[in-house]
Amino acid sequence: MSTHGGRPLPAGAQQEEPRRRKGKGLSRRSLFAAAGAGGVGLAAGAVVHAAYGSAREPAPVAGVVPFHGEHQAGITTDAQDRMHIAAFDVTTQDRDELVALLQEWTAAIEAMVQGQEIGEGGATSGDYDAPPEDTGEASDLTASHLTVTVGFGRTLFQDDGGARFGLEGRLPEALIELPHFPGDALEEARSGGDLVVQACADDPQVAVHAVRNLARIAFGRARVRWSQIGFGRTSSTSAAQATPRNLFGFKDGTANIKSQDADDLAGHVWVSGAAGAGAWMNGGTYLVARRIRMHIETWDRSPLREQEAFIGRTKRTGAPLSGGEEFTEPDFALQGRGGPLVPADSHVAVAHPSNNNGVRMLRRGFNYTDGSDGLGRLDAGLFFIAFVVDARTHYVPMQTAMAKHDALSEYLRHTGSGLFAVPPGVQPGGYIGQTLFEV
Amino acid sequence: MSTHGGRPLPAGAQQEEPRRRKGKGLSRRSLFAAAGAGGVGLAAGAVVHAAYGSAREPAPVAGVVPFHGEHQAGITTDAQDRMHIAAFDVTTQDRDELVALLQEWTAAIEAMVQGQEIGEGGATSGDYDAPPEDTGEASDLTASHLTVTVGFGRTLFQDDGGARFGLEGRLPEALIELPHFPGDALEEARSGGDLVVQACADDPQVAVHAVRNLARIAFGRARVRWSQIGFGRTSSTSAAQATPRNLFGFKDGTANIKSQDADDLAGHVWVSGAAGAGAWMNGGTYLVARRIRMHIETWDRSPLREQEAFIGRTKRTGAPLSGGEEFTEPDFALQGRGGPLVPADSHVAVAHPSNNNGVRMLRRGFNYTDGSDGLGRLDAGLFFIAFVVDARTHYVPMQTAMAKHDALSEYLRHTGSGLFAVPPGVQPGGYIGQTLFEV
Repeated sequence: MSTHGGRPLPAGAQQEEPRRRKGKGLSRRSLFAAAGAGGVGLAAGAVVHAAYGSAREPAPVAGVVPFHGEHQAGITTDAQDRMHIAAFDVTTQDRDELVALLQEWTAAIEAMVQGQEIGEGGATSGDYDAPPEDTGEASDLTASHLTVTVGFGRTLFQDDGGARFGLEGRLPEALIELPHFPGDALEEARSGGDLVVQACADDPQVAVHAVRNLARIAFGRARVRWSQIGFGRTSSTSAAQATPRNLFGFKDGTANIKSQDADDLAGHVWVSGAAGAGAWMNGGTYLVARRIRMHIETWDRSPLREQEAFIGRTKRTGAPLSGGEEFTEPDFALQGRGGPLVPADSHVAVAHPSNNNGVRMLRRGFNYTDGSDGLGRLDAGLFFIAFVVDARTHYVPMQTAMAKHDALSEYLRHTGSGLFAVPPGVQPGGYIGQTLFEV
Repeated sequence: MSTHGGRPLPAGAQQEEPRRRKGKGLSRRSLFAAAGAGGVGLAAGAVVHAAYGSAREPAPVAGVVPFHGEHQAGITTDAQDRMHIAAFDVTTQDRDELVALLQEWTAAIEAMVQGQEIGEGGATSGDYDAPPEDTGEASDLTASHLTVTVGFGRTLFQDDGGARFGLEGRLPEALIELPHFPGDALEEARSGGDLVVQACADDPQVAVHAVRNLARIAFGRARVRWSQIGFGRTSSTSAAQATPRNLFGFKDGTANIKSQDADDLAGHVWVSGAAGAGAWMNGGTYLVARRIRMHIETWDRSPLREQEAFIGRTKRTGAPLSGGEEFTEPDFALQGRGGPLVPADSHVAVAHPSNNNGVRMLRRGFNYTDGSDGLGRLDAGLFFIAFVVDARTHYVPMQTAMAKHDALSEYLRHTGSGLFAVPPGVQPGGYIGQTLFEV
């Protein structure tokens, strides 16, 4: 928690509440003021501890998603509405520096997800002749349900020069190089990466602040390879959340695994029982990232009948074309005048577990728009993110089928791609990825 | 207002409230349901009319910013937190087609700002063999204080081929070509444009939906030249709003004109008393757009002392370095050990009205981040938007001074630019820009 940089606080500052955002949590600013009011420079966490009488973990604060746990946050967490994700290339050759980076990231993330500024000095360090430890643009904002999820790319373990960081014996078999799929138009500068950081929050400025500060901390050790801001979630991860819409205007992720589905999470998302090279991944999962440009201009000129036939659901309610409501199971056998009511090449049919060896995934993607494409069109689409137990069984077959058979594919172009091993959660005192380096 | 596409509503749909966003307004979906419950296909506006007993204007709905008025909305409107702005090149050569486009845009904007779907058919037109009139991705969201502000670029009046659309006698003197400023690194593909559309809302998906649908409506007549999404506002336009922070971590826009400052709005923002070529602009204003890349990586390595000296304010409270609190007027004469407490080349000094012939502006910019720059850094900064009565007096001199003397300039690079004449507001039955074409 920061001190106030040696300058007197203006009168009334200690009474200030976050005014800009409507979240219910404490803001970095009000926590700061609370510490200042105590006059003893207590860390904000300590202030909360004292109030709740616990010495172990901070008491729950509205808008704060707990950081410590068996799994990393930001996977089964109720999907936040905004995201900033970035991949990094590690530039140091030194294993200790890489571990130190992960330790510093862990400490920064622990502070940020609680709505605190980073470091002892915060945004207005007491040392006027040093750069601040926090860049400050989120200082008046609340924690906003920020989660930061970190993963490791295959190139962290080995690249063209061979093994890296002494991790040659630790590459999980499941951390494959994704194959080329039909129609892929991947851009090198939007693909791959040694590390990935997925920051999700109610407030995009909080998510951007997180990525930006982790990039700042990484200076000299890792640098941004690609980054993507997503403005609207396209999946729900809780049965209590309404299903949002993608840029085709359809509800997306109706069949998603929800945090309430314990069996599906155990079977399709979390790694368990792994031995050998990948044993450090138990409690972890794999993050598949795909930047999918949507040809929204041609889509918008398609008749509603075609749009619904491509998706296999109605546009208004999201019910399968075989009838019922959004969460009714599609009946692929039900025939209409011209064939199955749910066409065999519709997205819902091709992606359905019954056509994919029963596999399911936990999707957590976001709508994006990145300016225009120079041809008079918006560059917009879906930044697809899914968490799966093994991409070899849970992503590659389905994406192969979709690229070949899904009628929707003619409106899609995959321009970025990544697969990352997301290590298990962190225990108090530990750091992200500790099992990779120490066990 | 849409009908439901010929399919029966699922049971319970008419009771559904918007669940995804926490806004208080009616969603497009619940308005739809209300119309459906009425069973007579009433427009949503009419439903609200009936409830309030007025036949002229809809009664106020939470989250709805009124569209009609003396001035366009989205200028003095309390600055919303999210924005999507796009410029268009007009591709038709036909004046009537241009007017028709503006009329269709007006009708679409009128619907969208009320949280309604566009057109009679909406997102799920009754005609299954036609493309829907609304793309649908905002159908479950509320109006979210959406405003859409439209302006005209100089190239709408004349381009390399000479006069366009018979507008040769209508080019206002103030709609100049902005000069080249020292340090400008403008990209053609991020600059200029015949038309501009600024969509602001509490929810970015609502703002993107607006731009995307106006682009869809423009098909064959105008096409996107550039677009920019902004994730966090950097100015307040009301004394009731807290001052937000830019990506340097400082409060930005403390000295902004607020909607409560009637004299300043009259003197520095709204065009009045214009005669001749620019008479149609009375009640309008000029929008200056500048995409300003910030070198945040080097900024983040600057000591706090330097950062505060560059800005001329403290980082924590935003008070001028001469003392007081955020809204205290800076005292440029007050001396410290090494010179003025507020350095003469600080941003607050160079931009202050006392150093700019007393001019002020109404700023309405947004933080942005657009992926990375290929050199390991985030492409992030400020999308500067200001509304001024005349850029020749209210922007060009100040920007010239800042580019030459503002110490902050070394951390900034202007990569996009535009100046647009924003016509006055629209009366019921009228359309945006009517005074340009008809008076």
